[in-house]
Amino acid sequence: MTTAARRAALRELLRTAGLDGLLVTDLVNVRYLTGFSGSNGAVLVAASGEADTRFGTDGRYTARAAVEVPDLEPVVERATVFALAQRAKDLGVHRLGFESDAVTVEAHAALAAALDTTPTGPGSGAAASDTGTARVELVRAPGLVAQLRVVKDAGEIALLRRACEIADAALHAMIAEGGVRPGRTEREIALDLEFRMRGLGADGPSFDSIVATGAHSAIPHHAPSDTAVSPGDLLKLDFGALVEGYHSDMTRTLVVGRAADWQRELYALVHAAQAAGCAAVEAGVPTKDVDAASRDVITAAGRGAEFVHGLGHGVGLVIHEAPALSAASRDVLEAGMVVTVEPGVYLPERGGVRIEDTLVVEGETLTGFPKELLEV
Amino acid sequence: MTTAARRAALRELLRTAGLDGLLVTDLVNVRYLTGFSGSNGAVLVAASGEADTRFGTDGRYTARAAVEVPDLEPVVERATVFALAQRAKDLGVHRLGFESDAVTVEAHAALAAALDTTPTGPGSGAAASDTGTARVELVRAPGLVAQLRVVKDAGEIALLRRACEIADAALHAMIAEGGVRPGRTEREIALDLEFRMRGLGADGPSFDSIVATGAHSAIPHHAPSDTAVSPGDLLKLDFGALVEGYHSDMTRTLVVGRAADWQRELYALVHAAQAAGCAAVEAGVPTKDVDAASRDVITAAGRGAEFVHGLGHGVGLVIHEAPALSAASRDVLEAGMVVTVEPGVYLPERGGVRIEDTLVVEGETLTGFPKELLEV
Repeated sequence: MTTAARRAALRELLRTAGLDGLLVTDLVNVRYLTGFSGSNGAVLVAASGEADTRFGTDGRYTARAAVEVPDLEPVVERATVFALAQRAKDLGVHRLGFESDAVTVEAHAALAAALDTTPTGPGSGAAASDTGTARVELVRAPGLVAQLRVVKDAGEIALLRRACEIADAALHAMIAEGGVRPGRTEREIALDLEFRMRGLGADGPSFDSIVATGAHSAIPHHAPSDTAVSPGDLLKLDFGALVEGYHSDMTRTLVVGRAADWQRELYALVHAAQAAGCAAVEAGVPTKDVDAASRDVITAAGRGAEFVHGLGHGVGLVIHEAPALSAASRDVLEAGMVVTVEPGVYLPERGGVRIEDTLVVEGETLTGFPKELLEV
Repeated sequence: MTTAARRAALRELLRTAGLDGLLVTDLVNVRYLTGFSGSNGAVLVAASGEADTRFGTDGRYTARAAVEVPDLEPVVERATVFALAQRAKDLGVHRLGFESDAVTVEAHAALAAALDTTPTGPGSGAAASDTGTARVELVRAPGLVAQLRVVKDAGEIALLRRACEIADAALHAMIAEGGVRPGRTEREIALDLEFRMRGLGADGPSFDSIVATGAHSAIPHHAPSDTAVSPGDLLKLDFGALVEGYHSDMTRTLVVGRAADWQRELYALVHAAQAAGCAAVEAGVPTKDVDAASRDVITAAGRGAEFVHGLGHGVGLVIHEAPALSAASRDVLEAGMVVTVEPGVYLPERGGVRIEDTLVVEGETLTGFPKELLEV
């Protein structure tokens, strides 16, 4: 889908919401709607059409914008958002939506002040606001672009697939070349994985890699430390590649050397729970039911209290995005959503196992690294 | 300075602002005040003291919190912010500040709704809100922690120094080992620098590295591409290391092979402008005067229009933070601020030069790589 087609889809949502335009300031949404990848950009999407729609950035990014956003007229101003809001006013936009789930209370107040046409001098009555230039009404409009983003198009799935393939290949190569061995630290392993992903074409890691060995594997979100891998450790690797803004996400847990019986049991339990979760992923299914399908396996084994987080999340231009796969979620799966399934059981001071895949609903599993217990 | 001392300093600001507490939700500020480095954390800083102050996170981070935040009682809840706000209410906090420059309009609305003690059932009058449990008033309180963060303490400067030293060493080593050579792509050079920084102890790059060769060097913020370095290119490198949350920032521009006369002239101009900017950095000086001291050199040479951005910015737990060094800024330098000085002149289609240092106001220059024109 082209970015122009995405903007056209957004216009449908604007009409339904009774908005004349939307000021898109969340950089991720800006990227989705325009392709712009810089650190300062915004879009005014006019409900009336492309002719009135504008992309804004500042002087540092004019060259990049010309390449990445060739199809929208640029507004180049340091105060990008104010310039676009002023443009909306000039265009006669009355009901201007703003991304109230991304705009801070202060930024909203500043924008409202800048747009206010009420004279502020002495003697100006309340009625003055109804005279002269038309006023712009700023309307809270959370989640409109997110609503589009939740189902991925073919181009997005292709990028996610590439990101997942890179992560797979990096892990295969690292293990094949002896990168997992006693004496190597968590930090060294994280760096090795990240370096390999970059070499394979990733723009970077998709989040701070989790490399957790031995007792650290019992910490769901452990930051890589100078602790070295020891024989007999469970080694948990949760990492991903970033490709053109799209994030891959995969967790594998290995055993360094020979697995002990308790490790085999723990692994088999999580493996079964993960398979149950994946099997439940289907269009039309409430995500809480997917969470339950996986969690029930762990609970039945008496380990429910040691599965301390939700089952998974959507992934795309943001590493954690809608839908949430958890007991509290009200989301329902749709074809083309891309979600993780990542149950984990954590035994404090001993070790933990988490296994995570990324799946396209009604489509393929994007993460391909084997899930059988691997003794390295 | 310990994190407890920082919280004590914040309490002084709370008292001045007439607040009984501050709900700190900006993760950078949470890290500054507690040391916590995870992705979900918040602090309720009670004006009354440490005994009523709470750190909040969720179940994924209890182990990390125990290590990083040993001196505050943890509140472990997935809905962390709501749990802390409820705690504030239980403690009898009346005026509860929130970080209105970080909290979104939607998050604020949800928080306000959660704290409202007004019965919502039928027949409840307006007066009901004054009865029963005391109400919490949510007060906009932007920039309080930022106010503390703008002047760095010795521990912070030590981390920034280490980050800058790592970037220096990475660039020295890369050049010494032939990493800058015709045929190598911008992406390869960026990866090389980042890998070396990680090997030298950085947690990662401090921002997306800018590596821009030849005509690309005329683009102020250019993303590394598959374009290869050619003999005669200006090669602009803007990059930094991340160390325990602190960012280094340095730009150097090299010439690949022998410099042409126009490149020498351009370099000498920017070099002189950068020296003038650095010389103007002193406590008590308005930052716009520092910007002018550097910009005047470029303007006098007839290149004012090709210096398209501000002179610099503060740097610390965020890569771009207060103070701004620009013509529009009202900030004034204070001893212990850490700022960049980075003039640039960009000749479209030909090439550009930017030279950037990071300096402690009334202290040392943290970036040490030489600034003489280097032909590699």
